[in-house]
Amino acid sequence: MPLSHVRIVMINTTHPGNIGGAARAMKNMGLADLALVEPKEFPSGDAIARAAGASDLLDRARVCATLDEAIADCELVIGASARLRSIPWPQLDPRECAAKVTGTTARTAILFGREHSGLTNDELERCHFLLHIPCNPEFSSLNVAAAVQVVAYELFHAGGQRDDGLASMVDETAYANGVQMESFFGHLEDVLREIGFLHETKHVMSILRRLRRIFNRTHLEEKELHLLRGILTGVQRRIQSSR
Amino acid sequence: MPLSHVRIVMINTTHPGNIGGAARAMKNMGLADLALVEPKEFPSGDAIARAAGASDLLDRARVCATLDEAIADCELVIGASARLRSIPWPQLDPRECAAKVTGTTARTAILFGREHSGLTNDELERCHFLLHIPCNPEFSSLNVAAAVQVVAYELFHAGGQRDDGLASMVDETAYANGVQMESFFGHLEDVLREIGFLHETKHVMSILRRLRRIFNRTHLEEKELHLLRGILTGVQRRIQSSR
Repeated sequence: MPLSHVRIVMINTTHPGNIGGAARAMKNMGLADLALVEPKEFPSGDAIARAAGASDLLDRARVCATLDEAIADCELVIGASARLRSIPWPQLDPRECAAKVTGTTARTAILFGREHSGLTNDELERCHFLLHIPCNPEFSSLNVAAAVQVVAYELFHAGGQRDDGLASMVDETAYANGVQMESFFGHLEDVLREIGFLHETKHVMSILRRLRRIFNRTHLEEKELHLLRGILTGVQRRIQSSR
Repeated sequence: MPLSHVRIVMINTTHPGNIGGAARAMKNMGLADLALVEPKEFPSGDAIARAAGASDLLDRARVCATLDEAIADCELVIGASARLRSIPWPQLDPRECAAKVTGTTARTAILFGREHSGLTNDELERCHFLLHIPCNPEFSSLNVAAAVQVVAYELFHAGGQRDDGLASMVDETAYANGVQMESFFGHLEDVLREIGFLHETKHVMSILRRLRRIFNRTHLEEKELHLLRGILTGVQRRIQSSR
């Protein structure tokens, strides 16, 4: 698993619901290793509820007494920080963070601090990089589970992990071919003439060109083309029967 | 404000906490326009609690009885879908979605469906594009507020990088809005009935659905819509004159 070297570390989380939300976000994005440093309440029913189908991550989460214990085996430590620190710390946005993390096999910890106060200076000093999620400067505090979601999403994206679904989703649709399209446009033009639509105007070519654009852009399936042809024929029949 | 043309539409949301979480995620990323279609419980204390400092968005959220009401003025409608639909619908990932949305001034709605069942087919038929967040195929259902967070993050990210020369590439085409599209589909259906096309078959709904797909997928400009309406009127006149 390409992200198996990545651990999410949540420190002193106050609301257990946020731990559940983070677990769900992790599992959605193929992360599995969660460490909790002195959570206020854990295990917790709220955490399980918010985790939805990801409570297996909660079961396997390691509860640690100190941050040092949680990152003991980590060679790369990145701390998420809501504030842009004035201290000259190497700073990454989520995309840069994802590039760095997926570009290494070093065991990596990404730290998320307290809901209200983030990481302490002491904790920041354990970090090789700070991670900052760019956002509205007038309302910049993300929910901690939402922050985990954004970072996990970028990790998954960078990991090049296409959904299996997407990868195997070979498009086997039968599209209308050039001959069929030309024949359709001819039919359409006939009907426009029969209803008198093209006689009324000098802009015949520009109208036909516009219609071509509309129907080429939509990339018609063969079945859809048959439907439209059926409608055109329906118009012609209706006109003839009323003659 | 670069994202002021973007509306988040949440449909039949069951848990008010998710509405609050979405509002917070939106405000974090500079989005302000929230519409709620038949929320199960709103206003709600849970929503306010999860919104943290973003309850102003909840105060200004518009509660709508129908999706059509929520997207009436929207020229671009994008539906978030957890499932990869087998139907060949133009599909975007969050980054592609952000590029498209920040590259236009058209009023845009991004739809998020129910917690358990997402968007209905009827709702999908209002969409020009589907939005799929790539994720772990074995656990692919994101929490709806988390999905809003990911999409909003990409919008903010794309919007923030638009200051350079790219501004001149903004698509200022006037597209048909939701009201115009519904009115067009109504007109089309009328004509199909008048020519007897829908009487001949039991598959009325499936035909209308197919036609919706064709014309939504092509993302009609307002001018193109007028042309098509003109053709429909031409058919009706021709039929009447031959009576």
